[in-house]
Amino acid sequence: MTKLKTRILILVLLIGLAFPLLADEGLWPFNMVPKDYLKAKYGFEATPEWLKHLQLSSLRPGGASASFVSPDGLVLTNHHVAQGAIQNLSTKERDLMKSGFYAPTRADELKCPAMEFLVLQGIEDVTDTVQAAEKPGMKAPEAGEARDKVIAGLEKENSEKKGWRCTVVKLYAGGMYHLYKYKSYTDIRLVFAPEYLIAFFGGDPDNFTYPRYDLDITLFRIYENDKPLATPDYLKWSTRGVREGDLVFVSGNAGSTGRLLTMAQLEFLRDVSYPFTLANLQRRRALCIEYAQKGEEEKRIARRSLFGIENSFKSITGYQSGLLDPKLMAKKAVEEKSFRESLTKDRALNTEFGSAWEEISAAEKAYASFFKPLAFFERGQGFNTMYFGLARNLVRLAEEKSKPNAERLREFRDAGLPSVKRNILSPSPIYDDFEAVKLADSLAQLEENLGDVPEVAWILAGRTPEQAAKDIISGTKLKDLDVRQKYLDGTLEGVYLSNDPMIKLVLLIEPLSRGLRLRYEREVSSVETKNGTLLARVLFKLKGISIPPDATGTLRLSFGPVKGYIENGKRVPYQTTFAGLYAKSAQNGNKDPYELPQSFLQAKPRVDRSVALNFVSTADSIGGNSGSPVVNRQGEFVGVLFDGNIQSLPCNFVYTDKIARSVIVDGRGIIEALLKVYGAKPLVDEILGKK
Amino acid sequence: MTKLKTRILILVLLIGLAFPLLADEGLWPFNMVPKDYLKAKYGFEATPEWLKHLQLSSLRPGGASASFVSPDGLVLTNHHVAQGAIQNLSTKERDLMKSGFYAPTRADELKCPAMEFLVLQGIEDVTDTVQAAEKPGMKAPEAGEARDKVIAGLEKENSEKKGWRCTVVKLYAGGMYHLYKYKSYTDIRLVFAPEYLIAFFGGDPDNFTYPRYDLDITLFRIYENDKPLATPDYLKWSTRGVREGDLVFVSGNAGSTGRLLTMAQLEFLRDVSYPFTLANLQRRRALCIEYAQKGEEEKRIARRSLFGIENSFKSITGYQSGLLDPKLMAKKAVEEKSFRESLTKDRALNTEFGSAWEEISAAEKAYASFFKPLAFFERGQGFNTMYFGLARNLVRLAEEKSKPNAERLREFRDAGLPSVKRNILSPSPIYDDFEAVKLADSLAQLEENLGDVPEVAWILAGRTPEQAAKDIISGTKLKDLDVRQKYLDGTLEGVYLSNDPMIKLVLLIEPLSRGLRLRYEREVSSVETKNGTLLARVLFKLKGISIPPDATGTLRLSFGPVKGYIENGKRVPYQTTFAGLYAKSAQNGNKDPYELPQSFLQAKPRVDRSVALNFVSTADSIGGNSGSPVVNRQGEFVGVLFDGNIQSLPCNFVYTDKIARSVIVDGRGIIEALLKVYGAKPLVDEILGKK
Repeated sequence: MTKLKTRILILVLLIGLAFPLLADEGLWPFNMVPKDYLKAKYGFEATPEWLKHLQLSSLRPGGASASFVSPDGLVLTNHHVAQGAIQNLSTKERDLMKSGFYAPTRADELKCPAMEFLVLQGIEDVTDTVQAAEKPGMKAPEAGEARDKVIAGLEKENSEKKGWRCTVVKLYAGGMYHLYKYKSYTDIRLVFAPEYLIAFFGGDPDNFTYPRYDLDITLFRIYENDKPLATPDYLKWSTRGVREGDLVFVSGNAGSTGRLLTMAQLEFLRDVSYPFTLANLQRRRALCIEYAQKGEEEKRIARRSLFGIENSFKSITGYQSGLLDPKLMAKKAVEEKSFRESLTKDRALNTEFGSAWEEISAAEKAYASFFKPLAFFERGQGFNTMYFGLARNLVRLAEEKSKPNAERLREFRDAGLPSVKRNILSPSPIYDDFEAVKLADSLAQLEENLGDVPEVAWILAGRTPEQAAKDIISGTKLKDLDVRQKYLDGTLEGVYLSNDPMIKLVLLIEPLSRGLRLRYEREVSSVETKNGTLLARVLFKLKGISIPPDATGTLRLSFGPVKGYIENGKRVPYQTTFAGLYAKSAQNGNKDPYELPQSFLQAKPRVDRSVALNFVSTADSIGGNSGSPVVNRQGEFVGVLFDGNIQSLPCNFVYTDKIARSVIVDGRGIIEALLKVYGAKPLVDEILGKK
Repeated sequence: MTKLKTRILILVLLIGLAFPLLADEGLWPFNMVPKDYLKAKYGFEATPEWLKHLQLSSLRPGGASASFVSPDGLVLTNHHVAQGAIQNLSTKERDLMKSGFYAPTRADELKCPAMEFLVLQGIEDVTDTVQAAEKPGMKAPEAGEARDKVIAGLEKENSEKKGWRCTVVKLYAGGMYHLYKYKSYTDIRLVFAPEYLIAFFGGDPDNFTYPRYDLDITLFRIYENDKPLATPDYLKWSTRGVREGDLVFVSGNAGSTGRLLTMAQLEFLRDVSYPFTLANLQRRRALCIEYAQKGEEEKRIARRSLFGIENSFKSITGYQSGLLDPKLMAKKAVEEKSFRESLTKDRALNTEFGSAWEEISAAEKAYASFFKPLAFFERGQGFNTMYFGLARNLVRLAEEKSKPNAERLREFRDAGLPSVKRNILSPSPIYDDFEAVKLADSLAQLEENLGDVPEVAWILAGRTPEQAAKDIISGTKLKDLDVRQKYLDGTLEGVYLSNDPMIKLVLLIEPLSRGLRLRYEREVSSVETKNGTLLARVLFKLKGISIPPDATGTLRLSFGPVKGYIENGKRVPYQTTFAGLYAKSAQNGNKDPYELPQSFLQAKPRVDRSVALNFVSTADSIGGNSGSPVVNRQGEFVGVLFDGNIQSLPCNFVYTDKIARSVIVDGRGIIEALLKVYGAKPLVDEILGKK
């Protein structure tokens, strides 16, 4: 090891330039915040108390972010994060997406079934324990399985200790393992949501752009034992707000970045994964738009899918633009080349680490060879209906629950079971007509792409995709919550002997599906982890932990100043105001997607149009950060992140603060709208602590 | 418990007549031999040494019986038991079934791959351990699973201790559990087999009849480390032979009897199981006969299946004749009624045991409701090809081996894995043309019977059964031993992603198959065990262990005199001779099935025609006893059991020694044939210890 250290020291000199200091880059785990850097650059002292308070004030709703904004369990997130819940509470007669919602008293707050918010209680480094599972001489898949068992044990044991939800998070592709301990809340009630028109003002055309004028917020309240949750850790609301140059912090569950990926992994995304996904999203988008044209109710139903599809399409297009940018890729290639060349100069080091890139590259090649069937079967591309997910969960739960915890598919381990069951029993409305249209189209796509796979013929059994989809959707009984409950409570043979056509479809493709998943784990993910671990080990030796790990859907802190930018020679201001909103609407004849809701039109005379509505910051963010609280040095709430501009999307792979920006709803704008547009004074009083 | 004892005592008085002493009835486990009865009735002292020697001289080849007959590992069994091995060594050019086989020197002995002989080393009572798994309040399926885990543990632990094959045997339907410890031998070589014509003289018409004239024997030798196994425990050959009235003993692996079944279980066999099986056997018999008519080679190929089919058909017809006999069923009904009525008189006892019959009866009703799909899918009736068994074993082995031992399907637990693997790697020849014919017919039968089950449409995928069978048989690669080995060594995803059409078929029906099996265990077998245990408990209280347990495919001792009988007023002599053999052949113009092989025709002048060839005894036996050594009071070999007469078949349910007889090849006849017909003097010398 001392020999290694000497070698590494030499390496540092050789390849130091391969890792330049990347400005304020970084979605930092809360236990790895670069305090020295913050101190040196901003004179900011990130004390343990400051961090802990922000951590406990942050929440994780599904794959997004939120924060406590009152001591009575009031939670703020984005409207687009809350869309599912709002639509679950909507019907043809009462469309809360259209009308918005405000509960003047607590009795008016609406229960949102099947929702869960998690609050991160603590992080523990379990790297040594997990890595010790790999014994010398183990091949990648074997080592992967061994680690997986240790991880399952850690999660189960720790979850049971305090009744928390514990998850081991893999950082640096295997270089570190941290145990995240969450408290779970499941009694969630809707308090306030604006109209879709103002929450998503500008619609898909303005999504991922700036300047923006969106009131993309929703308020929930968490209850415990039928009482509002007492939340000593909540964010005080700054009434001063922000000015250009102010340092702000973002605390949220950043989804996924690929900044430490190898060239082979980036090329896989560029050449295989993204093109496939984009083509699928386009197809699904066209389908939703066609369906929406059938009538008002169809439009309402399709809208739910449409937002997600368009949002994904635009963000992935942005990511892909980075990978298609020769400059970005050249920069990445130079970095990797210099790293690799430096290693090759040291024979011993090269023996230990030198093959990592080739092994990853071979894994990506293998991955490409079965990516399509994996996507269509295991990942459900061929079965675009909510019923498929339900049936699959029921089948797999029945199979997995009889196995020992550590042997199960990851998502069916004890620590995750409550959330699987909650999803299965979710009363989200299902519209069979729409489901049949979606399933028919995806079956057709499956047939076009993998028509020679015997399972496809079995599924269709001589029928057209339309007829098969109709038969399956009209035959399945899984809409009925009692039926789902019965399967849940029942035995494995109850599932195996089911005549439900959706369950039979799942069973029919199950060996192929599972086979593909196993193949992915064996040939791809375990190889990526094995070699990612090696590369991380060298990285740590060279740079300590000055390079943050890629995002993993877990709580991260990022920071940077509030700052406008120059785009095509034009100055883009750091903030927008209500005046800008009304002007933008007027310029577009108040027409979709710039139509203002009645509330905003009527409130126009009352509103202070100089009040800030949105602003931008250089603080790092990525999908999953939606709903992240943005706080100032005092830890006070100044806004809620809801987007990044289009230039921020390639930051998935290379961070830059030149013109990439996070887009944030300004806290002052929220107060102005709640008071002047919605007359929600009690809510404002609660938020501002005036009660 | 003392209260129970008092009650039981009263019961004994009440229902004593329900269990009359049944003469020499009994297939007795070697640790439960009725020594007092033998002493009292025959003045015979069954010493521990006598029993142990016989036990260690007995063998279990597959589902039949055999014995050591020399200190050098020479093993005697029936020709019809050895048929599979003999046919595996045969080809179109060298048909050992036709020509017979004799290895004059050890170098000439032929290795029989994939064979295994077991020798029972000891029996241990584990009843308390197994029954303790059932906790108060457990329902039948839950109790069944709990017992099953304990059994799996006992088997694994004891197997590992000495490298033995340990199996827990359930006796009295759950009233007792004994651990059987076997030593396994797998280097088996063929030493001598007569021609099929003399081994099965009289063919199917004479099968299960008497008088008989069959030389139904085959000799193997067991090797260990490439040397003949030294076997201190072997049976000395009696040159005196037997006379009428002599007491003889049969030591063999009696397959299955149903003497302790309830009326509901008997009725299930009579009304559901046997009619179904008989119809299937008839269909398969017709198919084989049709196939055999295509040519000589086809005849050779079909013969292999045909013997088993005709043998099963005839024995089950015999069993069924018992169940269709109103007198037999009335006797059974009276016994059960009297037992039940006696119980009802004691309220407390009735509460504990009284519902057993109804619960079993309900289980049989449930069983009947899914018996057909169970038979077609899980038990393979719909897929009549050797490839199905191979593919199913490969699939299930891959799935089960990753589970903890106790969670696996019984046949895939560690204790049984070597034999599963040996079967998978068996080089038994497979004739694709015949396999396609069988599969096509069974698929057609499947379609006729269960055409509305979706799996059937998936399997056929629009093809005729003939076309589907052709595609599957021509597409499968499972004939290739290397391919099987690759699957064996491979991963679960290797099986799940296989394109082999036979494996895909197995995977396709796997959920349904497993579901049916689970349903059977949950609704039928666990209920039978639960209530069988209750009934056994009362039985033991009433009669101790004076009633032997039903046969379970494990080593049993039975006994009785050598004895002729009166049939239709005519005396049937206790033995037949070579004279009778030649006479019978001549009477039938030496035509099939009474055609004598050349060897016997040529030896006619040399043979002492007064020598006994076959004889009969009242000793209890059943299918599985084929190949059992028959010994005299001195424990000397006097013959090898090969059949029962047609009147013995209803003994499956009610033993009688009136005209039911076991049919035995006489030891003197074997020596005469070996010497005079086959010139196998060295073999005779070895057997008689003259070397």
